[in-house]
Amino acid sequence: MTKEAPYKEIALRKQAERQSRIPRAWLLAALPPSATLDVRSIPRNCGILTAQEIHITEACDATALAQAIRQRKVTSEAVTIAFCKRAAIAQQVTNCLTEIFFQDAIATAKLLDEEYARTGIVRGPLHGVPMSLKDTFKVKGYDASIGIASLAKNPAKENSLLVDILLEQGAVLYCKTGIPQTLMALDSENHLFGRVMNPRNRLVTAGGSSGGEGALIGMRGSVLGVGTDVGGSIRVPAMCNGLYGIKPSARRVPYVGQQGTQKAGTSAVGLPASAGPLATSIRDCELFMEAISNASPWERDPHVYLGGLNKQGTVQEEPLIGIIRRDGVTEPHPPVNKVLDETAEALRRSGIDVIEIDAPAFKKCQSLTNKFFGVDGNNYVFDLLEATGEPLVGWLQGKLRRGTEMSLDKLVGFQAQKTELETEMLKIWREPITGRTVDAIILPVAPHPVAPIDRWSGVGYTSSFVLLDYPAGTLPVRDFQEADMDDELTGEPLNSWDKNNRELWNKPFDRSVYLNTKLSIQVIAPKLQERRLLQAMNLIDRALRGSNTQPKL
Amino acid sequence: MTKEAPYKEIALRKQAERQSRIPRAWLLAALPPSATLDVRSIPRNCGILTAQEIHITEACDATALAQAIRQRKVTSEAVTIAFCKRAAIAQQVTNCLTEIFFQDAIATAKLLDEEYARTGIVRGPLHGVPMSLKDTFKVKGYDASIGIASLAKNPAKENSLLVDILLEQGAVLYCKTGIPQTLMALDSENHLFGRVMNPRNRLVTAGGSSGGEGALIGMRGSVLGVGTDVGGSIRVPAMCNGLYGIKPSARRVPYVGQQGTQKAGTSAVGLPASAGPLATSIRDCELFMEAISNASPWERDPHVYLGGLNKQGTVQEEPLIGIIRRDGVTEPHPPVNKVLDETAEALRRSGIDVIEIDAPAFKKCQSLTNKFFGVDGNNYVFDLLEATGEPLVGWLQGKLRRGTEMSLDKLVGFQAQKTELETEMLKIWREPITGRTVDAIILPVAPHPVAPIDRWSGVGYTSSFVLLDYPAGTLPVRDFQEADMDDELTGEPLNSWDKNNRELWNKPFDRSVYLNTKLSIQVIAPKLQERRLLQAMNLIDRALRGSNTQPKL
Repeated sequence: MTKEAPYKEIALRKQAERQSRIPRAWLLAALPPSATLDVRSIPRNCGILTAQEIHITEACDATALAQAIRQRKVTSEAVTIAFCKRAAIAQQVTNCLTEIFFQDAIATAKLLDEEYARTGIVRGPLHGVPMSLKDTFKVKGYDASIGIASLAKNPAKENSLLVDILLEQGAVLYCKTGIPQTLMALDSENHLFGRVMNPRNRLVTAGGSSGGEGALIGMRGSVLGVGTDVGGSIRVPAMCNGLYGIKPSARRVPYVGQQGTQKAGTSAVGLPASAGPLATSIRDCELFMEAISNASPWERDPHVYLGGLNKQGTVQEEPLIGIIRRDGVTEPHPPVNKVLDETAEALRRSGIDVIEIDAPAFKKCQSLTNKFFGVDGNNYVFDLLEATGEPLVGWLQGKLRRGTEMSLDKLVGFQAQKTELETEMLKIWREPITGRTVDAIILPVAPHPVAPIDRWSGVGYTSSFVLLDYPAGTLPVRDFQEADMDDELTGEPLNSWDKNNRELWNKPFDRSVYLNTKLSIQVIAPKLQERRLLQAMNLIDRALRGSNTQPKL
Repeated sequence: MTKEAPYKEIALRKQAERQSRIPRAWLLAALPPSATLDVRSIPRNCGILTAQEIHITEACDATALAQAIRQRKVTSEAVTIAFCKRAAIAQQVTNCLTEIFFQDAIATAKLLDEEYARTGIVRGPLHGVPMSLKDTFKVKGYDASIGIASLAKNPAKENSLLVDILLEQGAVLYCKTGIPQTLMALDSENHLFGRVMNPRNRLVTAGGSSGGEGALIGMRGSVLGVGTDVGGSIRVPAMCNGLYGIKPSARRVPYVGQQGTQKAGTSAVGLPASAGPLATSIRDCELFMEAISNASPWERDPHVYLGGLNKQGTVQEEPLIGIIRRDGVTEPHPPVNKVLDETAEALRRSGIDVIEIDAPAFKKCQSLTNKFFGVDGNNYVFDLLEATGEPLVGWLQGKLRRGTEMSLDKLVGFQAQKTELETEMLKIWREPITGRTVDAIILPVAPHPVAPIDRWSGVGYTSSFVLLDYPAGTLPVRDFQEADMDDELTGEPLNSWDKNNRELWNKPFDRSVYLNTKLSIQVIAPKLQERRLLQAMNLIDRALRGSNTQPKL
């Protein structure tokens, strides 16, 4: 009998530890049958949450919670317990959590309440608000295993800088969330924790690599979480779970002190990733960016650029929004086009000008971006996996392999191509005839709706804006409806990417899998103009949803 | 008889071409004898300039000239002719020019005068002001040979972006200036154009790599020029010629489209260089930065950061200036220390607080910076040299060689060390006991006064701020005086660098060579805070020079 690979035993222990951190009273009597695809109503109906806890977790965004706490309508403790309970349930039905620290969180919330009662002063804009974090962030005393067995059982000795800043700004941290093995996938599955499921529709992906955040917030087990994105890892799970998500330009939000899958220093020569929010409202994304900006992070992380939120660009008084319909690599499915049209119409109805943008260079972005991934030949991550005999998860098999590190000469050549492409793409920000500035551009997040598990295709729509380093956000438009199933995708495949993508729409594919998923758009702004992006997303959100009513407690 | 290496013939033709571009009437009757060390008075006394031309070139900085042109006290044409004449004389006595385009400049100046007379509107803050450029910048129709024969006789097809911007802002470009072979030296000598001489004292170096700018402005053949700096190449020639010079953070000022000595894309993985001003007043450095900022360069060069001058930091209402006395690698000579003390005293007399800064990490900067130079094994530049049989100039022999390009793994390791060092160095910006912010820090530009030709030592004081990417400027304090010769450098050499540096002070070295050179200090501010640096330098300048009288026409 061959000895079992060590990772399996570690995974069993790790999952048992995670389970042990959920109080017995918060365990569901029974798990939903697998035929139940939409599990979002379980927290409301399971009897574990009180009526107030249901209200807190369902009716409010983080901004409303922060305000209610400041106004003493509710305590941070009550809010924190509500979200801990709901996160516990979310974990049981979507497997979205990695590290659980509910007890620490409730203790912190009590302290914040006492402090506020005593001083009348809040720590910052996040005072008392529970926040969740992608597993890559280090929280002292807990693992940052990123789903790799050899990194488990090695509690962090220090917080990541972003964690320190969130705590200083008053946030209550209560859990960390699931990711894909190696972080280089758009489905969040790994051998240590298993697979994160999409709470709206367990047949489609929850997205990745911040998939645990997506599913948790999709369950309203959190309303504000932090993910990271180097290809689409915030924007894709935001789309999959019907959320708002922002990938800032790299080095805008402190990234230092996370567990990664490359040697320290690699991102300085390749493509750096960004940290950013996933949320249930655009104003919560702004709340997050404001809290970071408040902390003057450039004084503490040398990679963070100078400039608070008020220096991050602005939309013109008479805004101009552009549309890019396709990347020239994969042709979007009909409903993806349709929500772009619907958004443009809504904007025009609101009196905002919309123009079509011709971006011939866009089609070169995806392949160049791919060149930058795995510059180190993936050796660091394979060493980590092989240390406990961990094989690749299914989706990665055949896609990721050990290689040799890239030569410097080759890398330098790619950097030169990148500069050329960045220069060409600068043209999209100016209307060619009038010279008028384009404030923001809407385009697909992906060329397809939320894809079935392990079938995501066409990451170029998101990864290109990592190459270009533009801030980019996901904005949910509406649910996929029966009527969306009727349109056909015409023409012939442009290439193998496009062929794969067409297989997610054309027969024999069963389009009904998309029912109940959210159709979203992506919004982009020029490099380092995060405020401009937030303002544009806010305009678009208002145009789509009519009056800008925001949730309140 | 062996055939002569082709570079010699090219150099002869190139120098003849340069000479032919100086009008006969502007040629000196005789060159000064080599015993004449200070040649600065020649333009005034040679009879080539009119009294008004002497006044224009000697009494004004660029700000005053721009103002006089706007106020119609003088035409751009008159100003341009005056500086062309004086530059022609500077060339004859210091060999500071590479490309000469006086005729184009005078034609441009006329056009600008006519336009202004017609419209009453200036193109920008530089309207009508003559500006010089380091040879690395490309001006359409002229070589950007950077002193390498194989690059000569290949006129640029396009302007560098910075050149376009300066022209749009109204500048009149009339010449380009000398540099060292390979740009990797602090003396500006190459086989194509020869050596740039220091106009104050032809026994000491004019500095490099923007040495031609230094000498030209030192002769007042220009009052505002553009250099580039990746180790000290603006700050060193500024010091050598008694000027103000600013190296901004990289990617603040457009750098794109210059002729370099590495493959395109190399700086993206190593240390990027900066472009910045050399000038005769601190307000002219500000004028330059303002003109660049006006042009929103981030909309045209994807490498330039978002943020105009008004977003580049600011000095506190009650400023705090720090002093760093040594880098821990080379011990400064006594007069270098003395001008730091004198500056601190002047500041204190002006009511500005000054504190000593402990920067233990500073000593690690120089050696790490050196690791980043020649990441490509210098192969690109050796290919350029060998194409015409060009040997290395004396100073570079034994210092620069062809190597193999660095492995990516090694480079990534250095990048990680860089991040650690940057993080440690962030501490210098906060007074450790009170937590008060330090606005700017003064320190030596070099551990010695302006060194004799080919003897510059200890580039760590400047190159470290390329590694750290801090904006850094040179500020002239006073001339080296007889009395400065008396102090002794005590203690034992710390290392071989320090030993070399002591040889520039201790006997048998003849300290009298330093007479008539300028002692300067360096001023630094945190990354991307160019306005904060300019404000601090202005404060220091006022404290040193008493009332802030500025030259006027």
